[in-house]
Amino acid sequence: MPIPAPNLYPPFNIIRLSHAVFGVKDLAASRAFYVDTLGLQVTDEDEEHIFLRAMEERGHHSLVLRKDETSEIRSLAFKLFDEGELDKAHDWFKSKGHRVEWVERAYQGRTLRTHDCFGMPIELYFQMDRLPPIHQQYALYNGVKPLRIDHFNCFAQDVDTAVDFYNEMGFRVTEYTEDEETGRLWAAWTHRKGGVHDIAFTNGLGPRLHHTAFWVPTPLNIIDLCDLMATTGYVANIERGPGRHGISNAFFLYILDPDGHRIEIYCSDFQTVDPDLEPIKWDLKDPQRQTLWGAPAPRSWFEHGSIFQDVEPVESDLAATPIIAP
Amino acid sequence: MPIPAPNLYPPFNIIRLSHAVFGVKDLAASRAFYVDTLGLQVTDEDEEHIFLRAMEERGHHSLVLRKDETSEIRSLAFKLFDEGELDKAHDWFKSKGHRVEWVERAYQGRTLRTHDCFGMPIELYFQMDRLPPIHQQYALYNGVKPLRIDHFNCFAQDVDTAVDFYNEMGFRVTEYTEDEETGRLWAAWTHRKGGVHDIAFTNGLGPRLHHTAFWVPTPLNIIDLCDLMATTGYVANIERGPGRHGISNAFFLYILDPDGHRIEIYCSDFQTVDPDLEPIKWDLKDPQRQTLWGAPAPRSWFEHGSIFQDVEPVESDLAATPIIAP
Amino acid sequence: MPIPAPNLYPPFNIIRLSHAVFGVKDLAASRAFYVDTLGLQVTDEDEEHIFLRAMEERGHHSLVLRKDETSEIRSLAFKLFDEGELDKAHDWFKSKGHRVEWVERAYQGRTLRTHDCFGMPIELYFQMDRLPPIHQQYALYNGVKPLRIDHFNCFAQDVDTAVDFYNEMGFRVTEYTEDEETGRLWAAWTHRKGGVHDIAFTNGLGPRLHHTAFWVPTPLNIIDLCDLMATTGYVANIERGPGRHGISNAFFLYILDPDGHRIEIYCSDFQTVDPDLEPIKWDLKDPQRQTLWGAPAPRSWFEHGSIFQDVEPVESDLAATPIIAP
Amino acid sequence: MPIPAPNLYPPFNIIRLSHAVFGVKDLAASRAFYVDTLGLQVTDEDEEHIFLRAMEERGHHSLVLRKDETSEIRSLAFKLFDEGELDKAHDWFKSKGHRVEWVERAYQGRTLRTHDCFGMPIELYFQMDRLPPIHQQYALYNGVKPLRIDHFNCFAQDVDTAVDFYNEMGFRVTEYTEDEETGRLWAAWTHRKGGVHDIAFTNGLGPRLHHTAFWVPTPLNIIDLCDLMATTGYVANIERGPGRHGISNAFFLYILDPDGHRIEIYCSDFQTVDPDLEPIKWDLKDPQRQTLWGAPAPRSWFEHGSIFQDVEPVESDLAATPIIAP
Repeated sequence: MPIPAPNLYPPFNIIRLSHAVFGVKDLAASRAFYVDTLGLQVTDEDEEHIFLRAMEERGHHSLVLRKDETSEIRSLAFKLFDEGELDKAHDWFKSKGHRVEWVERAYQGRTLRTHDCFGMPIELYFQMDRLPPIHQQYALYNGVKPLRIDHFNCFAQDVDTAVDFYNEMGFRVTEYTEDEETGRLWAAWTHRKGGVHDIAFTNGLGPRLHHTAFWVPTPLNIIDLCDLMATTGYVANIERGPGRHGISNAFFLYILDPDGHRIEIYCSDFQTVDPDLEPIKWDLKDPQRQTLWGAPAPRSWFEHGSIFQDVEPVESDLAATPIIAP
Repeated sequence: MPIPAPNLYPPFNIIRLSHAVFGVKDLAASRAFYVDTLGLQVTDEDEEHIFLRAMEERGHHSLVLRKDETSEIRSLAFKLFDEGELDKAHDWFKSKGHRVEWVERAYQGRTLRTHDCFGMPIELYFQMDRLPPIHQQYALYNGVKPLRIDHFNCFAQDVDTAVDFYNEMGFRVTEYTEDEETGRLWAAWTHRKGGVHDIAFTNGLGPRLHHTAFWVPTPLNIIDLCDLMATTGYVANIERGPGRHGISNAFFLYILDPDGHRIEIYCSDFQTVDPDLEPIKWDLKDPQRQTLWGAPAPRSWFEHGSIFQDVEPVESDLAATPIIAP
Repeated sequence: MPIPAPNLYPPFNIIRLSHAVFGVKDLAASRAFYVDTLGLQVTDEDEEHIFLRAMEERGHHSLVLRKDETSEIRSLAFKLFDEGELDKAHDWFKSKGHRVEWVERAYQGRTLRTHDCFGMPIELYFQMDRLPPIHQQYALYNGVKPLRIDHFNCFAQDVDTAVDFYNEMGFRVTEYTEDEETGRLWAAWTHRKGGVHDIAFTNGLGPRLHHTAFWVPTPLNIIDLCDLMATTGYVANIERGPGRHGISNAFFLYILDPDGHRIEIYCSDFQTVDPDLEPIKWDLKDPQRQTLWGAPAPRSWFEHGSIFQDVEPVESDLAATPIIAP
Repeated sequence: MPIPAPNLYPPFNIIRLSHAVFGVKDLAASRAFYVDTLGLQVTDEDEEHIFLRAMEERGHHSLVLRKDETSEIRSLAFKLFDEGELDKAHDWFKSKGHRVEWVERAYQGRTLRTHDCFGMPIELYFQMDRLPPIHQQYALYNGVKPLRIDHFNCFAQDVDTAVDFYNEMGFRVTEYTEDEETGRLWAAWTHRKGGVHDIAFTNGLGPRLHHTAFWVPTPLNIIDLCDLMATTGYVANIERGPGRHGISNAFFLYILDPDGHRIEIYCSDFQTVDPDLEPIKWDLKDPQRQTLWGAPAPRSWFEHGSIFQDVEPVESDLAATPIIAP
């Protein structure tokens, strides 16, 4: 039985995913993509950084772009319930033998930098500068009208191990794909905030970041984004979709930023706050788990991901590419 | 300062609102409304009851219709985290001197019946029969395509008192209307599950149930419902909307069932899981708090509500009707 | 029988409504409304004029704003099939004893200025400068994403007379409201281009322009416009809607420009190209003819209209205001 | 120069495409597809036929299913302006040496059966039984909520010849694809009723019917249909899309009926009533002409089509498959 029982009393309380820090080679090109095309709002910027938030977020940033020589991911960050939980997190990671470090992060309170079971850099904090609401300043809405960051999806070289580790931290599995032949997990979606996922794992060369997702109002906003990207020089950046996922039931689009970081535009999954919510199991051989409507994902979608800084990814011992519909 | 600090460590853990039990005079008429028109799914029915769930719910029921001589509300129910929390709730209500009673409820585990600060009947449970997912059985989708119950809204004769009481139970205020002249609360929206509200209170003859809301996919489903109701004999049951609320930013429609119970069809509010989320304050004199687009609500919307069984409502000592735009 | 048989072989061939020329007192205020808020595209402008087109139009203009001391309408214009039809139109109006005049109009070929049966100024032309398509330049889409001008609606002091006159010109009635008591027409919708109307007439102090309509992609664009107007200082300019008309079955919103000219945002009527299409009759006492969902229009909607330059409107001998739902 | 000047004064007046007659092997299977899944309305049926109309059509049928041993197309039909035009059509086809025949067709007046330049069977009539409007009986709307038939698309072994022939009949080209190397037409879209096309031609083994299109309200209805088909056993019948066409700018989905007849679900093209509308030219090498967003069509889409009864298709002398994006 591959899915552990949900850990309803975790050692510390993670509220939700919070933000990612992306290395990007050309801040202006990234700004054109994230601000002018997707419609994220700049909350601060200088020669080295752009801080972005989506329309309903009151925290200072949900995406940080950092000018760099390479396009590596610096960290994935999570918000904790309060300062006490942050200290508990520190002690827990330390007790596990993970590297722990208190770091300074602009616009954030005390921040713990550590890593997960694969060395993937994660940062935990409880306090971030709060900004006035802008969700009713409709003149600011632009592009795909992004409302909030929704989830991370990571390649993992061993999804069973990932799920065990994140389950210990209280992430609850909502859906998963099992390889019927080996009985091993192929992919799993785990949440803290009451949606289908805050972070998901899929089998492959890992750890790498597969994508970061933003929630948008309706499928029509995704269609609008396709029209916009197709006619403003970004047609080659549309990688997959739009379509409906089997897993999560969400309406999706996958696009690539100028550095190749994959962004999912996402809406319409379901509420998962019940502690007794039963995970939904999918068979690796069912192509509708990926796209309910049957269209296959392109090969790049299974293979391409973003590297984490200073973390060498490792091959999975399961085959690296799932059955793709012909 | 009218809003109490959020109680982040409440005496017991309510997960979310769960369901309501409505007295209805004519089950067939109610079935035509809720099943054939709105699209709720029947999970059980007999001569005396109809149990209903919405499309993404896995609990057995989110609305129970009970044939009765009168159209009174029997209870509003909430789901607790686990059995331990249910016992804690029992003790807390008892310690407050509230009537507490263990009751049998079909398809539910141990259920506590008690009442709130105004005598409004509430029921708490932790376990309900779980049903297989149907959210991807698209052939079942019908009417407004209701996805899940979203919130209750109640008239309260004293909103300050209501907020204090529910805040003690851990309901966090997300938005509120203050009467600038008296400094008293006119209305407040409070949540457990991470949306704008699980339960809201508005000033008036109370306690009475103002409405019960169901979440739907997009505003277009609400437009579809208007078209359907307008051409199937329900045009007089469309009371207000569709429109955008200022408070909650949600897209809404208010309709009346055959017994006069008000249902809100609702989508597009925002995520509120952050424990440090700042409540948004609205002025009673700002008509956009009700309808962002400026259209006034009809008088019935301020005056009409459903009675709770065996609970005599009491006049508020604030004026009973707010400023209505001309 | 109030509706004349359709005149399938009219004396000249009008293709469609083309454009209106509005007097406006403050070009900058009008520009903020039509360009920045609605999303019409400027095709030319100077100190005295702004020429506008919608996104799928290839003719140079469908709305001309002309700086003026008063907010009067200068003309409503129609496009003819070719030059021969224009000469036939000239002769027909002249033979009727109507004033006819060849006028110079920027970006247009030979233009005939004349008037209808009530003295309402109309202009006819066959050739206008053609512009490159922009309907796939999605970065230009803005506001309500207006696609094309759809129709004019005019107050007429005698709708029977209006319908007879326009029917002679080949406008075909698609829907109409009859006052059952008098057997007279209350309102009528007449078309040339294959939709529900190019021009409609409604009983009242006339001739005056009731509104000019633009077609938009979907009801969601209308919701977006409401959100935008409500939060950018235009909330008082939202007069009626959004909603579904009974007549035309279109989804609508009525807004007022800074001079009080009424604009309808409109989509989803039906195709009417069949010459044997039966007009749909509505009873004046049926409130769903106006709003299928039952919501009444505000009094201003029945009373307010724009004056045509140098044309004194005349009271109708039918009552000036129809039955309004309470 | 491949596009002929529009023939604005054709020998007879075709109003619009009207209907198709499909041979189908299993009426029950076809009924499940067209009625239960797509939502077309049955206007008559017996052991041998099902007559269907879409929601806003008042003519008796826009699709006729005829039980047969083979899945061949019996005819494509067009509606003429009046009886005089029908006689003119008869004489014109006869003068061209085409076979002409007056045939009896249920629910239609006098009907001319003839064929186009490739022998493709076409039928012309001016009168069909008119049915009461149902476009406001919203309880009948189902499936993709089809509003009306929009166009036919045919494989032609020689698109230049097709365009010349249909242009003679007054079909006006709105968009076309030219093979830059040979200067020959690859595909062309031609209309009568004021949209992008009533009939289009694409290079290939011809004549064959590529698809028949129905117009629907919005892209969301197309998404709903995908969800429905994907979960009711029709996932393999979803062939291509949804997406935006470059040509026509329409939002589309291609599906296959149980006999392999291809249906396009279509919305959002543009109005083309101006006689001086300039055709838009696309280069065969531009993949965005097919899908604005860049996704390639599957090979089947270029190769599969429906045979016309008793018409042997002929290979094109241009290559049979265009450049497909990798």
